[in-house]
Amino acid sequence: MSYASTVEAYERLKNNEKAEDVIIDAICKVEDNKDLHSVGFGGLPNKEGVVQLDAGYMDGNSGCFGAVGCAENVKNPIKLAKSLADENRHFNNFIVGKGAYKYAIENGFETRDNLTKEAYEKYLEKKDSDIKLKSYDGHDTVCFVCKDENGLISACSTSGLFMKEDGRLGDTPIVGCGYYADSKIGAASATGVGEEISRGMISYETVRLMSEGYSAMDACKKALAKLNAKMDRKLLSISVIALDANGNYGVATNCDFAFSYASENCEPKAYFVNSKNEIRELSENDIID
Amino acid sequence: MSYASTVEAYERLKNNEKAEDVIIDAICKVEDNKDLHSVGFGGLPNKEGVVQLDAGYMDGNSGCFGAVGCAENVKNPIKLAKSLADENRHFNNFIVGKGAYKYAIENGFETRDNLTKEAYEKYLEKKDSDIKLKSYDGHDTVCFVCKDENGLISACSTSGLFMKEDGRLGDTPIVGCGYYADSKIGAASATGVGEEISRGMISYETVRLMSEGYSAMDACKKALAKLNAKMDRKLLSISVIALDANGNYGVATNCDFAFSYASENCEPKAYFVNSKNEIRELSENDIID
Repeated sequence: MSYASTVEAYERLKNNEKAEDVIIDAICKVEDNKDLHSVGFGGLPNKEGVVQLDAGYMDGNSGCFGAVGCAENVKNPIKLAKSLADENRHFNNFIVGKGAYKYAIENGFETRDNLTKEAYEKYLEKKDSDIKLKSYDGHDTVCFVCKDENGLISACSTSGLFMKEDGRLGDTPIVGCGYYADSKIGAASATGVGEEISRGMISYETVRLMSEGYSAMDACKKALAKLNAKMDRKLLSISVIALDANGNYGVATNCDFAFSYASENCEPKAYFVNSKNEIRELSENDIID
Repeated sequence: MSYASTVEAYERLKNNEKAEDVIIDAICKVEDNKDLHSVGFGGLPNKEGVVQLDAGYMDGNSGCFGAVGCAENVKNPIKLAKSLADENRHFNNFIVGKGAYKYAIENGFETRDNLTKEAYEKYLEKKDSDIKLKSYDGHDTVCFVCKDENGLISACSTSGLFMKEDGRLGDTPIVGCGYYADSKIGAASATGVGEEISRGMISYETVRLMSEGYSAMDACKKALAKLNAKMDRKLLSISVIALDANGNYGVATNCDFAFSYASENCEPKAYFVNSKNEIRELSENDIID
């Protein structure tokens, strides 16, 4: 879902635009795409048929983070998250539920009914089915880590688990779980089953491991392996992406995962990675957006 | 606020009651005390005059956590948090806002209007004052870490920042921030300015440092010092408590903080600790509850 955004971000960063602007537009592009059913507009609803959106943002220079959870009728939750990460805002930087909507209204952010006919039809189909949702196969949080000459930013956005409980938060709005950034070290963002990711503080742990000298790639793998070793059952789906302070990337997953990457020395490319951490480049034909 | 609960917990643990039962009752006792204005019944309201409660619970044996945030009209949020930490519940274990109330109703938990006349009067007084709330001097989340022969539990509960935004979450319901437990290593819980605690994943980091060989005491100090070193301004108030897998305690704070401790070799005692980490035992006269 992120390739088109990566291409655009790449062009803009080459033109010396700021990472903080580029990353927000990259995520908004996904939030505004009604055909992507796990983020923003068109996202699949909770068990009551309501779309509730989560987003998180961390500025690796200031160490400030902002997040919204279960935000209803907000057009771009990632914009709220960024606004809440303002370094002059020492309190109230993680806001959930109706408070997130009020924050949007009071601060001039656009609102929108995020439920589409197509998403609602999928909801009705699932609601009337006897099949209980037992696992979550989607890896569909949009995660971006982005670097410019000033430092690193990590951000992510999702509509969360399809048919979730009203008010359920996964890892996406949780600092250290869905996203973490420290410009001196690196940045990471995770997607998958939020409840699992949160047990291991996957994004924080990935960045922390980089501070011990691990490469971005090895830090991702080790953070996932550490959590796996703690579990007395099979770890549900988790994928994590990272950048170090020099712009080198890392990725690890225990399932199938697609991601894209670009740097000043590398044109945008899309990749597929499997649970053995075998990475292959995707061809134009494989890319749907 | 926790001494009376510590005494009761101590007696019950001596009688081989389970840590998971003892810790819940210890926290409920604080949640039910209307004279404590930062937890549960009698807690100070948000800027709209509404009491919104947060709680988190982690079982160090299973690695499962549960949490509620901004729960209104729930009698004991910590009971919901524990229930959500059930190891058969792989999803939906962190629920906020109106969803938390629905969860309480649907699952037979007691409800209660948590706003007292006294708390509302404090709200009216603050609301009409011109003095802007600039900092939060209270350290008033109730935090417990508890060990029995099976392992460790960490749990905490709060009404959050007085005059907070509707929907604001601090560290208390966030795993790794307000609480973390791993029975093979240790458990920790933090209190203070939630937004600061969450930048450093203080509870997770304290436990993780114990896994590197630090004592509970040194792990608390180092977790706090690490976050302090990252900041380009003065770190706002944070205190953290911990237990290692053998039941030794740790504490660190950058302000003034009171806590209590008991073990099979040590009768319950209350302590005061300052920002230089000088600990002194409190006398009976110093203890108000």
